[in-house]
Amino acid sequence: MGEEQRKGGGGGGEEAAARAAEQARELQDAAAALLARTRADEEALRRRAAALQGDLRRLRDAAAAAHADSDKVEEDLDRAACLIADGDIASLLPSKTHGAFLKMFLGPVNLRATRKEVQLKVKEEYNSYRDRTALLFLGFPVILLFLRQWLWNGCFPALPVQLYQAWLLFLYTTLALRENILRVNGSDIRPWWILHHYCAMLMALISLTWEIKGQPDCARKQRGVELFLCWAIMQGFVMMLQNRYQRQRLYTRIALGKAKRMDVVWGETAGVEGQLLLLCPLLFLLQGFEGYVGFLLLRTAHTGVIPEWQVVVCGILLIAMAIGNFANTVDTLIVKSRFKAKMKKSKGKRDLDTCPSPTGSLPTDSTAKA
Amino acid sequence: MGEEQRKGGGGGGEEAAARAAEQARELQDAAAALLARTRADEEALRRRAAALQGDLRRLRDAAAAAHADSDKVEEDLDRAACLIADGDIASLLPSKTHGAFLKMFLGPVNLRATRKEVQLKVKEEYNSYRDRTALLFLGFPVILLFLRQWLWNGCFPALPVQLYQAWLLFLYTTLALRENILRVNGSDIRPWWILHHYCAMLMALISLTWEIKGQPDCARKQRGVELFLCWAIMQGFVMMLQNRYQRQRLYTRIALGKAKRMDVVWGETAGVEGQLLLLCPLLFLLQGFEGYVGFLLLRTAHTGVIPEWQVVVCGILLIAMAIGNFANTVDTLIVKSRFKAKMKKSKGKRDLDTCPSPTGSLPTDSTAKA
Repeated sequence: MGEEQRKGGGGGGEEAAARAAEQARELQDAAAALLARTRADEEALRRRAAALQGDLRRLRDAAAAAHADSDKVEEDLDRAACLIADGDIASLLPSKTHGAFLKMFLGPVNLRATRKEVQLKVKEEYNSYRDRTALLFLGFPVILLFLRQWLWNGCFPALPVQLYQAWLLFLYTTLALRENILRVNGSDIRPWWILHHYCAMLMALISLTWEIKGQPDCARKQRGVELFLCWAIMQGFVMMLQNRYQRQRLYTRIALGKAKRMDVVWGETAGVEGQLLLLCPLLFLLQGFEGYVGFLLLRTAHTGVIPEWQVVVCGILLIAMAIGNFANTVDTLIVKSRFKAKMKKSKGKRDLDTCPSPTGSLPTDSTAKA
Repeated sequence: MGEEQRKGGGGGGEEAAARAAEQARELQDAAAALLARTRADEEALRRRAAALQGDLRRLRDAAAAAHADSDKVEEDLDRAACLIADGDIASLLPSKTHGAFLKMFLGPVNLRATRKEVQLKVKEEYNSYRDRTALLFLGFPVILLFLRQWLWNGCFPALPVQLYQAWLLFLYTTLALRENILRVNGSDIRPWWILHHYCAMLMALISLTWEIKGQPDCARKQRGVELFLCWAIMQGFVMMLQNRYQRQRLYTRIALGKAKRMDVVWGETAGVEGQLLLLCPLLFLLQGFEGYVGFLLLRTAHTGVIPEWQVVVCGILLIAMAIGNFANTVDTLIVKSRFKAKMKKSKGKRDLDTCPSPTGSLPTDSTAKA
């Protein structure tokens, strides 16, 4: 009986296995067909979108050439451009190039999310990542400065400071990667803020090789480290403020986007203006301080207290970042106020950030300034 | 006339703009519909695949319970599992979790390629990346050692060595990221090899903070650096050999995959066996040397020549990596030979690497060992 059962089981098994193999083949064929069909459909839509984009360009040129200052035409064209740039079709259009940085780190992978919800989730996660890191950014140097007085007799030991520097290197690398990914997914973050993070990565890397000298006279030798930590505290504080501002805008956008997904969002910046008034002076103050720390570093290198090349390069990098940050913040504010004036003139109801517009930058980039 | 033309242009423009806005809305609707339909179709296929996978598991258990040693059953089940795991359907199935490392660096982005060709391209790019870096891996320390004798009077300056260490940190970070991405895309690389790269990242980071002492008596103080560079030269050499082995296998696979895409590939390892005979002794030699360098580092720390914590931690890391590498290489060889014996016993025609099988590991992982 055992033999029979085994044979029977084998026979039944053979049949079932053959059926399973057949089913697997059918499934494979269905999947291949679906992929091919989807690709063809997407290609067709892509071609329609490209043609429409060409039409829009031509219409805009024609309107400009005819000096026809028609609100209706402008609104229609804006609406169409908005739908293409921000709608479901956007995910099917050829994406911005990934850029050398992403290719260098990740190779030729596709980082574009096809669904709008996923894109927003990526952005939301980026913001919450910034929230979490801002706390560390603020807390870590505060603790170091506190322990120096309380435990270390005015002298930093090397390890905790190097841990902080290593963490900064990691943080700036991840921020640069994530911002590049956001860019691929349609964020119009200004290139400078990403470039700024490359500079910060370089600085963190260099600071790791920067020997932290101990006794005697460490107060003088560690002046650079101390200044750097003070700057980091202020940086962390501003980062948290920026995050609040950024987050408020994103939530409004998601909520409105859900309510009526592809329509132009109205009055989204309500309630955020006040925060911007607080944010901007703080940003300028921080940028000034950043440049000042850079200057102090160069001076210590010049007077020979810490005559290492690392100090000089870090000083130059800080000053360059301060200047670039300042120029870009001012430029963003100018563009933003111009755009607002134009909006007020025309209708005053269009939001500034629903579509890729010259103003989409400040929130993302000012947060990216950390 | 000018006024009339302008009005006429405005009127025609208005009509055209309205039409464009309407077209954009239609396009948006079509794109939304396509995305929704595709998602539903994929979901249906996904459910069929999950059901079939359940059937396969049950059939395999039943076959095992009945002790039915039928080649036919086994082949059918293997073939079905193979199609699900390696066919077009695979790209629709829930992917392996991205893992903490990728989430930490990139956030919640989807890194899975839906098309087989893209997956193979990612792998191909990974291999060519390894080719390029192997040259640097080999050349950089050779040049450093050469210049030490020829230009630097037996004493490394800090900057070039730190540049090499910074590059190693970058290299290991990118390799770890890319291997994690390969894993998400279906590669069955052993977790150890990725873990190994995390250790190497940590070591490169620590070595950056490791002060490189100069004169006097730098030959003694820089013994650790010297050993490390010798090890790196050997590492680079083995990496290049591994890459050749790996590349040959991938090309065969792509070629065969193109010829008859989803069929089981035959005799793919032909011509590679000889290289494996050369590769394995070299791997073991390298692992022994890796452990030896770790031991020497610990000894220099113990005898007080370089009494820094960095030396101790690097020594421990090297020894741990050597042991882990050895254990995993041996384990992979055992599994590979067992699988080969089984294949010979049954038919001797099935390839070892077409499907996720217990043997898919050596190539990817031995290359990943660098």
